[in-house]
Amino acid sequence: MKHPPIARGLAAALLLLPVSAVAQAQPPEGALTPRDVPAKSVPVPGTVSPELQAVIAQPLRAGWNTPPTTPEGWTQLVGQLEATVGATAQPMADRLHVKIEDSTIEGVKVYVLTPADIPPRNRNRLLVHVHGGCYVLNPHMAALPEALQVAALSHIKTIAVDYRMPPDAYFPAALDDAVTVYKAATSSVPPRNIGVFGSSAGGALTLEMMLRAKASGLPMPGAIAPGTPMADATNAGDTFQTNALVDNVLVSPSGFCDAATRFYAQGHDLADPMLSPIYGDFHGFPPTILTSGTRDLLLSNTVRTNQKLREAGVETRLQVFEGQSHAQFYRDDRIPEDRFAIGEIAAWFDKNLGE
Amino acid sequence: MKHPPIARGLAAALLLLPVSAVAQAQPPEGALTPRDVPAKSVPVPGTVSPELQAVIAQPLRAGWNTPPTTPEGWTQLVGQLEATVGATAQPMADRLHVKIEDSTIEGVKVYVLTPADIPPRNRNRLLVHVHGGCYVLNPHMAALPEALQVAALSHIKTIAVDYRMPPDAYFPAALDDAVTVYKAATSSVPPRNIGVFGSSAGGALTLEMMLRAKASGLPMPGAIAPGTPMADATNAGDTFQTNALVDNVLVSPSGFCDAATRFYAQGHDLADPMLSPIYGDFHGFPPTILTSGTRDLLLSNTVRTNQKLREAGVETRLQVFEGQSHAQFYRDDRIPEDRFAIGEIAAWFDKNLGE
Repeated sequence: MKHPPIARGLAAALLLLPVSAVAQAQPPEGALTPRDVPAKSVPVPGTVSPELQAVIAQPLRAGWNTPPTTPEGWTQLVGQLEATVGATAQPMADRLHVKIEDSTIEGVKVYVLTPADIPPRNRNRLLVHVHGGCYVLNPHMAALPEALQVAALSHIKTIAVDYRMPPDAYFPAALDDAVTVYKAATSSVPPRNIGVFGSSAGGALTLEMMLRAKASGLPMPGAIAPGTPMADATNAGDTFQTNALVDNVLVSPSGFCDAATRFYAQGHDLADPMLSPIYGDFHGFPPTILTSGTRDLLLSNTVRTNQKLREAGVETRLQVFEGQSHAQFYRDDRIPEDRFAIGEIAAWFDKNLGE
Repeated sequence: MKHPPIARGLAAALLLLPVSAVAQAQPPEGALTPRDVPAKSVPVPGTVSPELQAVIAQPLRAGWNTPPTTPEGWTQLVGQLEATVGATAQPMADRLHVKIEDSTIEGVKVYVLTPADIPPRNRNRLLVHVHGGCYVLNPHMAALPEALQVAALSHIKTIAVDYRMPPDAYFPAALDDAVTVYKAATSSVPPRNIGVFGSSAGGALTLEMMLRAKASGLPMPGAIAPGTPMADATNAGDTFQTNALVDNVLVSPSGFCDAATRFYAQGHDLADPMLSPIYGDFHGFPPTILTSGTRDLLLSNTVRTNQKLREAGVETRLQVFEGQSHAQFYRDDRIPEDRFAIGEIAAWFDKNLGE
């Protein structure tokens, strides 16, 4: 490849300044020309399974650019999606031989997911799951697709938190509920034997739980798996632009997900680490596996989180899947790439949790 | 996020077929609609260092869509780039306190790179570097920027292979030379103490060396670091499309790099694992660290390689950097993200090599 010297003015500045000053240097005004990218037609790649090709070929999410504007509108949308997604949970549980029971833990609604086969080394282990959906979507059974697959492939009992959401409860209710369940779990199982996971808003909540736990003196779990985390709710991140209208799930940073997050935040500063955990301190976090896709609008969120964790000395595994848009890695247990991605998460827990 | 059920026809097919048949199933004809992505203007992200912002803001590589068409034309281009890049090597070596000496190993031209400080644990370790440049570019001192940085940050002596290239020698001369040097290295240093690395074509060569070594009964090294490998020279890979005209180095799959690779291949089948190692068997490969960027045309090549290695049971670390185009992670040792990326590669060698 070509290696032209970096821009001449900058190179001169670098020669004149000590390293510490260079790191603070601002590029010259007006030098940062945007990239003009022409319109294109992107085919469905031939490098994924036929099952995943069908997912990639789906059109952009209907209504991505017309999010609800009232609490009633959100309630209606949540109900529609819940009916669709929730209906897939029990058949998936049957296929995967996972028992679903609803319960409450210190007032928080949860589902207890019990795989049919729990080997002896997993009998004193526990997973806690926090679902995605931009802090507003996927209540009740719609919370379960990712949790069911991880429970099945890890063969570890899993508590899926059905946290409170708008318009019933706003920031930080979701985080409060997740931490309540995690804290209760640590009183019955050694923290090192606990794994915490979730994707999208659930990935952000996983990271926020670690920040909250550190701040309140709760012990860290043995490992975490934040999938494509909404780690930065301020719209910062290059793939918000490069993958806009390429990702067929989130579609655009001006889409429904950001509207939902603002609905949850209710005017709270979106750069607060309890909404944008990338701005928190990751030192002391447990081993972390992160998952994204090449078309994911949150690929930048994911790789920035990975880099920041590594800078904090945390052991990580990053996996990025060919052609996948946001959070498509746990779409359906019958997709080969799903089984692989979830298998990696299960293996990460098995490797890093205490017994 | 939304979880619509997968396409109805496909779902029905999945219910009717056993899993082994599903994996082979072809999607219905005509169902795979391409994604139409409108033109956009992508700003330079604010989520990287000012030094990297200057790199990202550079316009598309001049002449990306007008590659040479004659051997003389290639020789002229190679000479121009060599003058530019080669001139950066000695100042970089001075900054990094690495001594450069030229030598030959069994007739193959090499540079021996010796860091000023080699701690005792590294004195019986050795790295072998194979440079990038689409199998045609970056001879002589232009081969060295990545090698110098890894030598400096790993504090391990490094042999950089200045392999033969067109129009002097064609496929598989580059691979032959690289394997000759690796084989010679294994006769003086325990193979487990050797690391092999290189990016782009050098990443492909690193993988091809492992395939060749397995086939010829040579021992595996202790670890490898193929950066953004040209693991698939057949143009397969989703980011060839999604990052076309976003990546300011390779720019497009119809650009100069593919022309150069065809010039090297001289009509040889591009799907041969010795040109497209993704089609080889990765079982038995040593621990592997892979590096790419969110704007990299070869991000798909990189993540597909990572998945295939994991499927073969190989320990890997994938790192993907915010906003970076192809192979920008070793552009300049004064860029903070470069130091971080190379530091991760150095740490990978330190963790995995014997002493």
